[in-house]
Amino acid sequence: MADSVSSLLSLLDIETLDVDLYLGEAPKTDVQRVFGGHVAAQALVAAVRTVDEKRQVHSLHSYFLRPGDPKHNIIFHVDRIREGRSFTTRRVVAKQQGKAIFHLSVSFQIAEDGPEHADPMPDVPSPDELQTMQQLFAGAGVDWKPPFPEWSSVDLRYVTPANEVARARSGRLQAWFRALDHVPEVPHLHVCVLTYMSDMSLLGTTITPHGGIPGNHNYRMASLDHAMWFHRPFRADEWLLYDMRSSNAFGARGLAHGQLFTEGGTLVATVMQEGLIRPMKKS
Amino acid sequence: MADSVSSLLSLLDIETLDVDLYLGEAPKTDVQRVFGGHVAAQALVAAVRTVDEKRQVHSLHSYFLRPGDPKHNIIFHVDRIREGRSFTTRRVVAKQQGKAIFHLSVSFQIAEDGPEHADPMPDVPSPDELQTMQQLFAGAGVDWKPPFPEWSSVDLRYVTPANEVARARSGRLQAWFRALDHVPEVPHLHVCVLTYMSDMSLLGTTITPHGGIPGNHNYRMASLDHAMWFHRPFRADEWLLYDMRSSNAFGARGLAHGQLFTEGGTLVATVMQEGLIRPMKKS
Repeated sequence: MADSVSSLLSLLDIETLDVDLYLGEAPKTDVQRVFGGHVAAQALVAAVRTVDEKRQVHSLHSYFLRPGDPKHNIIFHVDRIREGRSFTTRRVVAKQQGKAIFHLSVSFQIAEDGPEHADPMPDVPSPDELQTMQQLFAGAGVDWKPPFPEWSSVDLRYVTPANEVARARSGRLQAWFRALDHVPEVPHLHVCVLTYMSDMSLLGTTITPHGGIPGNHNYRMASLDHAMWFHRPFRADEWLLYDMRSSNAFGARGLAHGQLFTEGGTLVATVMQEGLIRPMKKS
Repeated sequence: MADSVSSLLSLLDIETLDVDLYLGEAPKTDVQRVFGGHVAAQALVAAVRTVDEKRQVHSLHSYFLRPGDPKHNIIFHVDRIREGRSFTTRRVVAKQQGKAIFHLSVSFQIAEDGPEHADPMPDVPSPDELQTMQQLFAGAGVDWKPPFPEWSSVDLRYVTPANEVARARSGRLQAWFRALDHVPEVPHLHVCVLTYMSDMSLLGTTITPHGGIPGNHNYRMASLDHAMWFHRPFRADEWLLYDMRSSNAFGARGLAHGQLFTEGGTLVATVMQEGLIRPMKKS
């Protein structure tokens, strides 16, 4: 387990090239495109490096501009667009071969008090009652290998397997996940690890209402944007429930909503993502 | 009516200074800050001006960086970050006195077909059964004047008045609205007018669970970000139901979700906004 986890954490350990300029390693994969969560998490690390550690990330908004190429490392350039009294804002452009592949805006805030409310956690089985991805595929006689080595650092357990959700034509997926092994006591690191994980499985909600199952080649799918709001402190190496649903699909795009809860039922983050869901031409 | 409507449309008629550089007029108001929807809508017009009109806006993500000053006009600079085969992306920075006050990212897409689904419209009374803002305030003996002249161009009718929602400690506000008089048959113009209107009332949902009423000075409130997804064609001069709710408040920030439906029940847009909700110190 230690090896697989260090692959996710080492991916986040981007190299400083100059002031506001960073280099992130590409994933070691045979897949033709870099995983969206990989680029988003590394871009977030770049932004975090330029901000006082007392200020916490409370939201991010990003666009995927071009597919990332696993054959090249990624350059991140940070623009310090605002240094405010309470809020700090950064923009990050990720480039490969001189072309922008990703753009991130992220906002940081000092600690403040205010009124509190939160959506309740839905009633679901605990992760101990559910199967790991390996167990799920083994049950179907398949020896599952994750497409990216860093995915081995994540234990993801569907409340209802995606193929059953698709069979029921439901647009709601729920999964528990956590980073395997210990993530150090640095709040930003937990936020960056969650940003990586939050791009897993979410877009699947947009095709399950149409019987589509993520990965089964009925649709060409790609994340278009990714937005997150971080509400309360959490640990990425403890179980989080990812409650996902799709509210809309039209024009070859689908919209997905996600909420993240701790095992104790605390709402810790909200995610929105629109994705391309282009039906594959029948050959 | 014609005058008030032309004030909203003329606000969107920004001046071209040079390639990718535009000037938007400040609002004529005694309020100390520019309305967020004003800056967002003008920035969106700037982006639209640089894109082939066959490509439609399908999403935008923005951050409010500093309060806009009504004493100065606003400069918009467009960055053409991507020209793709199917998608075009623009970034716009809005500045006053050389300082960034707002940042927008916006994505355009060619027309494509794909699978379709949508959340249903909630069951609410029709706009004809509801009071205008003027009637609502007149009923309480108040002669209501909107803080910005352009607000007179919008007929907004709460399904349940905000003070009653606050009394019930609910985080859900619903309102019908439309631009008064005719918006020309240019699809982008309807999107820009809706962007303006979508910043009205939404953030109120974050304080009503705590008994707060928008405008009653218990909280210092300001929009922090604003994201929209445009799903299907619509007209901004026909009734739209704005179904708004807040899922979370913590750390002096509140998160609001909005969905927009036509009178026929079609989901046409989704809105997300986080806002500062800082309790005012008791004096």
